[in-house]
Amino acid sequence: MTDETHWDQLSINALRFLAADAVQKAKSGHPGTPMGAAPLVYTLWDRFLKHNPHNPAWPDRDRFVLSPGHASMLLYGLLHLTGYDLPLEELKNFRQWASKTPGHPEYGETPGVEVTTGPLGQGFAHAVGMAVAERWLAEHYNRPGHQIIDHYTYALVSDGDLQEGVTSEAASLAGTLKLGKLIFLYDDNDIQIEGDTDLAFSENVARRFDAYGWQVIGPIDGQDIPAIENAIRQAQAEDARPSLIICQTVIGFGSPQQGTAKAHGEPLGEAGLQAAKEALGWPLQPAFHVPSEVKKHMGQAVSRGRDAEADWQARMDAYAAAFPAEAAELSLQLSGDLPADWGAGLVDLFPAGTSPMASRASSGQVLNALIGRVHALTGGSADLAPSTKTHLSGYGDFGWDEYCGHNMHFGVREHAMGAIVNGMALHGGLIPYSATFLQFADYMRPPMRLAALMGIRAVYVFTHDSIGLGEDGPTHQPVEHLLSLRAIPNLTVIRPADAHETAEAWRAALLNRSGPTALILSRQNLPLLHDDNSAGARGLHKGAYILWESQPGQPDAILIGSGSETQLALEAGHELAAAGVRVRVVSMPSWELFDHQPESYRESILPSAVRARVAVEASICLGWEHYVGLDGAVVGMNGFGASAPAGELYRYFGITTEAIMASAHKLLATA
Amino acid sequence: MTDETHWDQLSINALRFLAADAVQKAKSGHPGTPMGAAPLVYTLWDRFLKHNPHNPAWPDRDRFVLSPGHASMLLYGLLHLTGYDLPLEELKNFRQWASKTPGHPEYGETPGVEVTTGPLGQGFAHAVGMAVAERWLAEHYNRPGHQIIDHYTYALVSDGDLQEGVTSEAASLAGTLKLGKLIFLYDDNDIQIEGDTDLAFSENVARRFDAYGWQVIGPIDGQDIPAIENAIRQAQAEDARPSLIICQTVIGFGSPQQGTAKAHGEPLGEAGLQAAKEALGWPLQPAFHVPSEVKKHMGQAVSRGRDAEADWQARMDAYAAAFPAEAAELSLQLSGDLPADWGAGLVDLFPAGTSPMASRASSGQVLNALIGRVHALTGGSADLAPSTKTHLSGYGDFGWDEYCGHNMHFGVREHAMGAIVNGMALHGGLIPYSATFLQFADYMRPPMRLAALMGIRAVYVFTHDSIGLGEDGPTHQPVEHLLSLRAIPNLTVIRPADAHETAEAWRAALLNRSGPTALILSRQNLPLLHDDNSAGARGLHKGAYILWESQPGQPDAILIGSGSETQLALEAGHELAAAGVRVRVVSMPSWELFDHQPESYRESILPSAVRARVAVEASICLGWEHYVGLDGAVVGMNGFGASAPAGELYRYFGITTEAIMASAHKLLATA
Repeated sequence: MTDETHWDQLSINALRFLAADAVQKAKSGHPGTPMGAAPLVYTLWDRFLKHNPHNPAWPDRDRFVLSPGHASMLLYGLLHLTGYDLPLEELKNFRQWASKTPGHPEYGETPGVEVTTGPLGQGFAHAVGMAVAERWLAEHYNRPGHQIIDHYTYALVSDGDLQEGVTSEAASLAGTLKLGKLIFLYDDNDIQIEGDTDLAFSENVARRFDAYGWQVIGPIDGQDIPAIENAIRQAQAEDARPSLIICQTVIGFGSPQQGTAKAHGEPLGEAGLQAAKEALGWPLQPAFHVPSEVKKHMGQAVSRGRDAEADWQARMDAYAAAFPAEAAELSLQLSGDLPADWGAGLVDLFPAGTSPMASRASSGQVLNALIGRVHALTGGSADLAPSTKTHLSGYGDFGWDEYCGHNMHFGVREHAMGAIVNGMALHGGLIPYSATFLQFADYMRPPMRLAALMGIRAVYVFTHDSIGLGEDGPTHQPVEHLLSLRAIPNLTVIRPADAHETAEAWRAALLNRSGPTALILSRQNLPLLHDDNSAGARGLHKGAYILWESQPGQPDAILIGSGSETQLALEAGHELAAAGVRVRVVSMPSWELFDHQPESYRESILPSAVRARVAVEASICLGWEHYVGLDGAVVGMNGFGASAPAGELYRYFGITTEAIMASAHKLLATA
Repeated sequence: MTDETHWDQLSINALRFLAADAVQKAKSGHPGTPMGAAPLVYTLWDRFLKHNPHNPAWPDRDRFVLSPGHASMLLYGLLHLTGYDLPLEELKNFRQWASKTPGHPEYGETPGVEVTTGPLGQGFAHAVGMAVAERWLAEHYNRPGHQIIDHYTYALVSDGDLQEGVTSEAASLAGTLKLGKLIFLYDDNDIQIEGDTDLAFSENVARRFDAYGWQVIGPIDGQDIPAIENAIRQAQAEDARPSLIICQTVIGFGSPQQGTAKAHGEPLGEAGLQAAKEALGWPLQPAFHVPSEVKKHMGQAVSRGRDAEADWQARMDAYAAAFPAEAAELSLQLSGDLPADWGAGLVDLFPAGTSPMASRASSGQVLNALIGRVHALTGGSADLAPSTKTHLSGYGDFGWDEYCGHNMHFGVREHAMGAIVNGMALHGGLIPYSATFLQFADYMRPPMRLAALMGIRAVYVFTHDSIGLGEDGPTHQPVEHLLSLRAIPNLTVIRPADAHETAEAWRAALLNRSGPTALILSRQNLPLLHDDNSAGARGLHKGAYILWESQPGQPDAILIGSGSETQLALEAGHELAAAGVRVRVVSMPSWELFDHQPESYRESILPSAVRARVAVEASICLGWEHYVGLDGAVVGMNGFGASAPAGELYRYFGITTEAIMASAHKLLATA
C-alpha cells in the first residue's frame, strides 16, 4: 500500500465513521449513503475540487451539491476535515438545536453548504442552475487569455433524485444547453427505502441520460479510486455535454446492514456500529475519531485553496487592468448590488393617459426598461414567454444562439425552472427570474419554498392570475394559489393593481435580497389608478396604503382590494361616498410587506376600531379574515372558476362593484 | 380513392374544421393541434377504440385521454360525430358559460371525457393510473375463458406533455410495471409556444422511452392512416411493454400558419380559416359543416358500441353464472359502493388504555383492518411505506410479485403518484390511496387539484405533519402545507387528534365520494383523548366538536386544537378551568367538514358572542383568523422550523400548554 492509498483509505473511513458516530449520537439520521458514497466524494474533493475552505464565497470556486441531503453528515465531514469553519463539536451536535449541522444541509447555516437539499431532485436541478450561471458569466466576461470565470459544478446524486420528475426536466434542459462543466456522480446503490430499487425503478439510467444528450460514464466500481479519478477526468474532457458517472456502491458499506434498506435511515445501533468499525479496521473508541494523518492530509485543502484563490486573484487583477469596465461590471454583478441609477426611468414609463394595460404587459415594459441598466437580470419562461411578456428584446437567447443571451427557454418544465432560477441566484452574479401562469405555480412550489428557506433573491413572475383569464377555464384559473403562496414564510407575494404598482413591484423584487418574490399579474387590461403621476404607487413598498378616501379621519367602512379588483373597490368607494358613507379604499398588493410594517403604520391604514371592512379579490375568500376578521366580508371566490369570457365570469361569480357596495351596506347596517 | 379513404379524409377534415370554426367563433382557443393530430385520433377512434357512445360508463370500454387538453375541440368533435350526447349546438357554444364544451376537457361536464386535462403532463400520468386499474381488476377477476376486464388505455400526448417531470415519473413506473395495454400516440410536431422545440427540447425521445422499458414505434407519418393503423396494431401485439407511437405531424395543418407557433393558441382569423378550407377542399360556408357522409360514417360508432357492450354483457352474464361470488364482488367494486359491514371493527381497534400512538401508526392499523372488508382499497407510498405505515400486510405488491397485489410501490415520484391514484379512481373499481410526508404534498399539488375539480374519491395520506417530526429539520417540516391544502376547493383535509379520530378520518375519507380527502398524520405519539370509547370521536364527521368543557352553557373562552396539538388545548383547558375560567375545548380536525355544517351547528360550537378564542396548531398561524377573528389568538408557527428533537422544538417555538393559557388569560383580560 502506497502512502497515498493509505491516506485515502484512512480519510474515507474517517468520513464514514464521523457520519455513523454522529447519527448514533443523535439517535437519528442516515448513515447508509455516507458509508457507501464516501470514496466518491472523497476522491472528488481530494483530487479535483477547486475551493478555498477559508473563503467559501470565492466566486470562481467549483460548486459541490449534495443532492441526497439526508447524507448531510458526509458533507459536514468533508467540510470539517478540509478546514472549513465547522469544528468537531458541531459534528457532535448533529441535528441539535442551534447547531451548524442540521439534519439536512441548509444554505446560510453552515459555511461551504452551497444549497439547501433534502427534498429529492432539488439538488440536481439547482446544480444545473449553477452551471447555467457559470456559463453565462464566462461567456460575458472571459476574454482571450483571461479565463476568470471557469469552474465546474459537481453533484452527488442518488436513486431517489433520479426518480423525481424535476430531475428529468433539469437533465433534459442541461443536455439541450450542452452544459459541459456539469459533472454528476450517481451513487447507484440499488437500494431505496421500500427495498430493492427494482421494485419501482427498472429503467436503464445510462440510456435515459444518453437520450438527454449527456455523456454517460461507467458503471464503475464506487470503491475504486483510480476508476473514479479517471471517470472525473473523462467528464472534464467533455465540454459540450454534461456528464453522469454511474458509480456502483454499497449502502451502509462495512456495517452488518450493508446493502439493505435497513442501512438507509436509522442509526446502526451500538452493535452494528462496532461491527462496522471492526470490519473496516477502525478504532472502536473514541467516537468521532480523526487520525492525525487524516487531519494533515485532508487539511491540505486549506493551503491549496489559498493558493488557488491567490492565483485567481492575480488573474483577476490582470483582467481588471486590461478590461477595467468589464471587471467593474462583473464585480458589481458578483456583489449582488444594483447600479446606482438602476431604477431611473421607471417612473416615466406610464404617463397619465396611458391606456388600460394588463399588468403582464406593463411588467414586460418594466423588465425591458430595467434590462438597460440591470445587466444581471436574466430569465425566461416555461414556454409561455409570448403570454407572460417576459422576453427581453434584443438580449439574445441563452444557449441557443449565444451563451451570453439573457433569455432562457425552460421548455414546459416549471418545476426545473424554479430550481434552476434558484441555482442561478445561489451561484451569484445574476438576478434571475422565471415566468409562467399562476396556475402552474403548483408545479414549482418545492423550489420556491427552498428559496424562501434559503433567503435568496429569485423573482417568480406569474401571470393569468385569476378568472380574469377567461375562456381557458378552471384548469387554468388560479383560485387557491394566492393564499397558498402567501402561506410560504419569507416569500413576498405582490399583486399590483395597475402599471404604476407593477413598476414598484419589480423595484421591490429587485430590492429584496433576503428572499424570493412572486409577482402576480393579470391577463386582462387594468386602468391606471393614480391620476397624474406614479408617486402614489410607492405605497406598494409598505404592502398596503390608502388609495383614496372620501375624507380624512376615521372612516365608517374600509374597502380593501388587490390587483385587478382594486379598481372595483375604488369604484365602490366612490359610489358609497356619493351615498354619504365615510369610506376609505386601501390598495393592498402585498400581505407580507404590510405585515412587516410597524404596528403604528398598520393601525393608520386599518384602524382597529373600524370593523366594517370589505376585501375584494378574485381568489378564494379564505385567509382575508386576517384583515377583515369575523365582522367583515370578503367578495371573492368560494370554489373553482369556469370557462367563459372574463367579464361574464366576474358577473356570474359576483365579484362586482355592486357586490362590494352591498356587503358594505350590510356591514354598516348591522354594526 | 376508395370509399373508405374518401370517408377517412372527409371525417378528418370535419374534425379539423369543427375545431377551427369553434375557435374562430369563440375568438379563443387552440386550432393547431386539432388540425395536425386529427388523422391520429380519427384512425384510433374509427378503427380501434372500443366504446359505446350511448353508455359512456360501460366499465370495459377502452379509455382515451387527450393529454394536451388545450386541443379540447378535437375531443368534442370526436364525441359529437360518434354519437355521444353532445349536440352541434354545444360545439358552437365552445368556451361559453354553462356549455358542455369548456376550454379544456372537464370530467363530469361532458359525456365521454375520461379525465380533466389542460395542465400538461397530467393526462399522461392519469392514463397510467387507468391502465393500473385495468390490470388490477383483470388479474383479480378474469378467469380462464372469461376475459371480462380487457381494455386498452390510449392517449394522445404532446411535446409539452413529454417535457413535464410528472410524465417522466409516470413513464418510468409504467415501464417498470410492464403495462402493455397502455398505447400513447405522440403528436410530434416540433413546435411549442416559444418556437421550435429545439429551443428547449433536443433530447432523443425514442431513446428515452426505450430506456424506460417502453416499445417505441416510429417515427411514422402522422397523415398516413395505414401507417397509424399498423403502428397501433403493433402496439396492441406487445403485452409486456407500454407503447409510444411517434407520429410526425404538422401543427395547424392546412392553414397559412401551419408548422409555426402562430398556429398553436389563437384563432386562425377569417382569412386564415378561409385559406385553410380552400387548401383542404372544404366548403367555406357554413361554419360547423358536417357532411352527411361523415355523420353516417362516424355515427356507426353507436351501433358498433351497442353491439360491443351487448357482447360484453353476455360474457359478464356467463361469468356471473360460473363465478357468482367474484361477479358480485366485482359489481360492488365497480359501483363504488362500500360493503354493508365495511366499517365494523374499527371501533374496537383502540380500547381504553391503548398506549399513546402516532396517528400514522393508528392509521396503519385502521388501513389493515379496512382491507379485510374493503377489497377495493389499493395504494402505496412514494418510497416511504415503512414511515407512512401504509403497507397492507399480506396483500402482495402490485406489479412486482403479482398484479393482484394491493400494495403499490411508486418510487420517489410523488407527482406521478398523485396522478396515478387519480387515474385509478377515474377508471373505477378501486378506492386508491397515496402516501408520503406532508412536506412532499407540494410535489403533488397539480393532481390533487384536478381530483378536487373532478370530484373523485382519492385518498392522500400525509404523515410527518409538523415540527413534531423533529431532527430532519425545516426541509422536512411542513409549516404552510396545511393552509395551502385547505385552500384547495373541494379537497377535504382531516388532521385527527388521536387514534379514535384517525379511525373516523378514514371512515370519512371512504364515505366522501364527491372529492378527494387528505389525511394529515403525526410522526410522534399521541394519547387517546376520549376516555372509554370512541363514540366521542364521531364528532369528527362534523369537522369540529366539543371535546371537553368545564361546564355547560356559554364559555368565557374557547380553545381550538387540531391533530397533535389538541392534547395541548385540552391540558390548557383543564388548567384554565382549575383557575376558574369557564372554558370549552374544541377539537377541529377538519375546516372543510365544519364549514359545511349548518349555521346552527357552527354557532353551537363557536358562539358568535364568545370572542376569546385561542387556536393551537403546529402550523403557520395565517388562516386561523377564519375562526378566531381579529380578537382571538393563534398559538402556532410564524416561520420555518428547525432541526432538533421534537420536544425541544415545541418548547423553542412556544407551542405549549403554557402559551395557550397565557394567550387565553390575555384575551380575557382585555375583553
